[in-house]
Amino acid sequence: MALFVKNKDTKPADYADISRVYRPGHADFTMQAKYGISASSGGGRASARETIGRVAAGAVAWQLVKKIYPAFDLLAWVQAVKDIHMSADPSLKTTDSLVTRDIVDRTPVRCPDHAVASKMMELIETAKKNGDSVGGIIRCVIRGLPAGLGEPVFDKLEADLGKAILSLPACKGFETGSGFGGTKLFGSEHNDQLIKKDSKITTRTNHSGGIQGGISNGEIICFNAAFKPVSTINQEQQTVDRSGNEITFKPAAGRHDPCVLPRAVPMVEAMAALVIADHVLRRRATAPLIES
Amino acid sequence: MALFVKNKDTKPADYADISRVYRPGHADFTMQAKYGISASSGGGRASARETIGRVAAGAVAWQLVKKIYPAFDLLAWVQAVKDIHMSADPSLKTTDSLVTRDIVDRTPVRCPDHAVASKMMELIETAKKNGDSVGGIIRCVIRGLPAGLGEPVFDKLEADLGKAILSLPACKGFETGSGFGGTKLFGSEHNDQLIKKDSKITTRTNHSGGIQGGISNGEIICFNAAFKPVSTINQEQQTVDRSGNEITFKPAAGRHDPCVLPRAVPMVEAMAALVIADHVLRRRATAPLIES
Amino acid sequence: MALFVKNKDTKPADYADISRVYRPGHADFTMQAKYGISASSGGGRASARETIGRVAAGAVAWQLVKKIYPAFDLLAWVQAVKDIHMSADPSLKTTDSLVTRDIVDRTPVRCPDHAVASKMMELIETAKKNGDSVGGIIRCVIRGLPAGLGEPVFDKLEADLGKAILSLPACKGFETGSGFGGTKLFGSEHNDQLIKKDSKITTRTNHSGGIQGGISNGEIICFNAAFKPVSTINQEQQTVDRSGNEITFKPAAGRHDPCVLPRAVPMVEAMAALVIADHVLRRRATAPLIES
Amino acid sequence: MALFVKNKDTKPADYADISRVYRPGHADFTMQAKYGISASSGGGRASARETIGRVAAGAVAWQLVKKIYPAFDLLAWVQAVKDIHMSADPSLKTTDSLVTRDIVDRTPVRCPDHAVASKMMELIETAKKNGDSVGGIIRCVIRGLPAGLGEPVFDKLEADLGKAILSLPACKGFETGSGFGGTKLFGSEHNDQLIKKDSKITTRTNHSGGIQGGISNGEIICFNAAFKPVSTINQEQQTVDRSGNEITFKPAAGRHDPCVLPRAVPMVEAMAALVIADHVLRRRATAPLIES
Repeated sequence: MALFVKNKDTKPADYADISRVYRPGHADFTMQAKYGISASSGGGRASARETIGRVAAGAVAWQLVKKIYPAFDLLAWVQAVKDIHMSADPSLKTTDSLVTRDIVDRTPVRCPDHAVASKMMELIETAKKNGDSVGGIIRCVIRGLPAGLGEPVFDKLEADLGKAILSLPACKGFETGSGFGGTKLFGSEHNDQLIKKDSKITTRTNHSGGIQGGISNGEIICFNAAFKPVSTINQEQQTVDRSGNEITFKPAAGRHDPCVLPRAVPMVEAMAALVIADHVLRRRATAPLIES
Repeated sequence: MALFVKNKDTKPADYADISRVYRPGHADFTMQAKYGISASSGGGRASARETIGRVAAGAVAWQLVKKIYPAFDLLAWVQAVKDIHMSADPSLKTTDSLVTRDIVDRTPVRCPDHAVASKMMELIETAKKNGDSVGGIIRCVIRGLPAGLGEPVFDKLEADLGKAILSLPACKGFETGSGFGGTKLFGSEHNDQLIKKDSKITTRTNHSGGIQGGISNGEIICFNAAFKPVSTINQEQQTVDRSGNEITFKPAAGRHDPCVLPRAVPMVEAMAALVIADHVLRRRATAPLIES
Repeated sequence: MALFVKNKDTKPADYADISRVYRPGHADFTMQAKYGISASSGGGRASARETIGRVAAGAVAWQLVKKIYPAFDLLAWVQAVKDIHMSADPSLKTTDSLVTRDIVDRTPVRCPDHAVASKMMELIETAKKNGDSVGGIIRCVIRGLPAGLGEPVFDKLEADLGKAILSLPACKGFETGSGFGGTKLFGSEHNDQLIKKDSKITTRTNHSGGIQGGISNGEIICFNAAFKPVSTINQEQQTVDRSGNEITFKPAAGRHDPCVLPRAVPMVEAMAALVIADHVLRRRATAPLIES
Repeated sequence: MALFVKNKDTKPADYADISRVYRPGHADFTMQAKYGISASSGGGRASARETIGRVAAGAVAWQLVKKIYPAFDLLAWVQAVKDIHMSADPSLKTTDSLVTRDIVDRTPVRCPDHAVASKMMELIETAKKNGDSVGGIIRCVIRGLPAGLGEPVFDKLEADLGKAILSLPACKGFETGSGFGGTKLFGSEHNDQLIKKDSKITTRTNHSGGIQGGISNGEIICFNAAFKPVSTINQEQQTVDRSGNEITFKPAAGRHDPCVLPRAVPMVEAMAALVIADHVLRRRATAPLIES
């Protein structure tokens, strides 16, 4: 699997002639429009390299939450690559509670269903051969947190998670719990019935994604993030150059991932951990007032 | 169409016995967990009544943006109710540029495709008869804005729109441009080719949803919001009461919408207008520096 | 003491001709410069009436802090009116620990030294007769808080208190602990020696004002706020009218305080309580992490 | 003048035994109380070394403001060292408009009155010989800005400047315009009369310090900052060690300034430039709305 090698080699020369065009799907045109200048290589500030600081900060946030809630766990994986999709769990409870980091990391594509993972890797190889790219969906679950995290109006837990995830490069969508699929259910199917289990109140299904009215309910918090196919492809494309002429463009052969999904997994985890840490601190600020 | 009457009648007595249970799908349990107390009627702070202030503020934000960009227009409509869906426009350009407020408001369900609107209303009536509820998808388009709105890293335009929309009650998902559907395309299909039209740079398709790298590109900004089916239904449901006993619950007959989608349209428009106004002001703060 | 009557009578007609001039010392000119319009009576948004909401919020903040730290107490008084000044306590400990609300409220001028209070009231009466006004200094002490409130760099406790107090109308200065007077001491005189008292570490003097490096040290937090003489006076003054002509101006006789100091006491207390509540919540957010 | 040499030599060994005591006047005790740990040398995060980043950022802020308002100028100097004070200018206009950076930088103590500067340096030398320290007052003037900067209620220009300046190490007081001294004037003396000069509205005196009701009026913005004498002295002092014993402490001979005032001048300038840049951007955001 040559796809997932580390960034040992950096080849700035590959980008030589991309400095003269607005690459389709990239932020070249918008950065120019906003700032009047653009970086000369690799997307500049719009590059996903920027997320390195987020991943570092996420590791600190994780430790902080873990210290307060020892049962805390947070895990993301690749749920879909293009049209190859893990099979759905209608209750949103079984898979979400069983997947482990060990299972996820056993394949380079980071999909915990290893049969599906094989098909994903095959598809990615094909895309690579064709100089094309693919996107997909990352799923994230957050376990071991109490009820009561999140604010009731503007800083709803799903709203803060949504903003954090949508700030990742190439992310085009965010859904929590039943999400877009849940719009196809009747209310009588969608409502999560409350039950008692070991003298604790829990829910039979988890269409709420662990959040109701912006506040966690103690179930697994789960969400999906949609990542578009990578904009950089090794095919001829129509575009406009920086002097305003319509042109045909094919980048000099460079090193590019045909699929960023496996690399985006730690980014999603980091952003989720940062949001959770913020809300845990907010909860700590006021909780003693309520409990005493 | 009795569904869409104004809130003339308020019947607090209907809520009498809901004060003793955690209603499935509602925020009763999470509000109790967070604050140790709960409102005695109608969902309290978790009620969508809270959005009245947002809609008022959105009207001011709209005027502010309109004064700076006279071509500004912002419009939302009901794209889907349960599994009844307007037909897709793969370029995301034609429908988004043609729909008008007048067309939207011609049916009470606020769907601009009037044949589809009839089916939606039929479905809502059926749900109502069964004491059930339905959800759906709202689409929003923002036209007439220049390139350059939005920030390159944390306050990306799609991130701020996402947070604003996900802070609305019952919203479970947000996607911009091609969104979740776009994950099923190859990069070669997804990339929006740049072309020239009337000596202005534009794109042939709008899979980017008018935003690239967090910054507007001058095309129509478009997004979808998923709203779950309303939690309040007139059917028997299993749940737990506030003393911790598993019970069967059927609310006393009250006045409830089986579908909030048409009412959510102005909420979506208001939140989008507020986000745009913020970014227009930020743009105004720094733009003269760049332009001079 | 006719000075301190309640606002029973409102006479908008008194302001009739002030709408045509920029009153010296008022915000008429700056509001016009910023917004292009001005309120037609009483200073509009620049009026100290605006602080009513702050005082209400301060009362809530007070309760919150009191619930967490039952020994909490916060008290302000009038330290000086013009050049009539309570005598100085070089250690900043004795007076600050002894004054009570009861002592403060025994005179309408809210100065706890009742001999000084008499002179202050005499001076205020004289100023009133002359159609003139006076300013002064308010001192505020905050007792019963633990060490550890405040942040080490940007949100230093004295910085947040300073911003809050300087946002009050007519406030021109803020100093904590030894303040401006402390600049006249040698370091060997200024440093607060640490001692032990009842097996607790405390300081012999309180030149630090209960804050070192931005963080509370468990001593009494104390600060002074300077309020300029009220701008509204019943004397002829030179100024410019709104058409740009130099003119002589004497307001129609209206009801105006010659000295706002006694009324500013609750404003200072409210702003201080709000800042303390914020820092108590921040402390609660992280303290359990440190203590465990 | 050996006092003002650059930080070429760093001698961490000097701090060896200070790690065992709470130094009087320092943040040793409060940092320990807040975080449960303390830095082992030089004050750690409470050291003024932290301000290096502020000074760097201030240089960028300065350029930004200068680009928008070419007449912009911002200058600070040492107004007082202990009881040696530049003579007062009651109008707050003449000195504030005449001092230049060149005049300030001609003496190492950064006092523009060179006769006074000599006395200050003499005093600092004496303090040094005695192992003692002195504080003082820094004055800052901001010229060439238009009316209309600052917000009318919470983010008043003087409030934001106050917070910024009070966040500097060793700063104990902030006053704008007439400040604490102004409380000794009658309103009839304090009010700044408006006059016309070259067909522009200006004021005869500047007791307002260029700000009225939180908003700049186009005059010179001026403020003073009080800095306490440095806590580090080479004399025997009483204090408590980290095990809670009352002890006598004299630090091993290290390199310490007996007076930080000249070094604090660029810190004050940097913080003021950052605040002004923020308010200039806010003004830019809304000004075009008002002007059109």
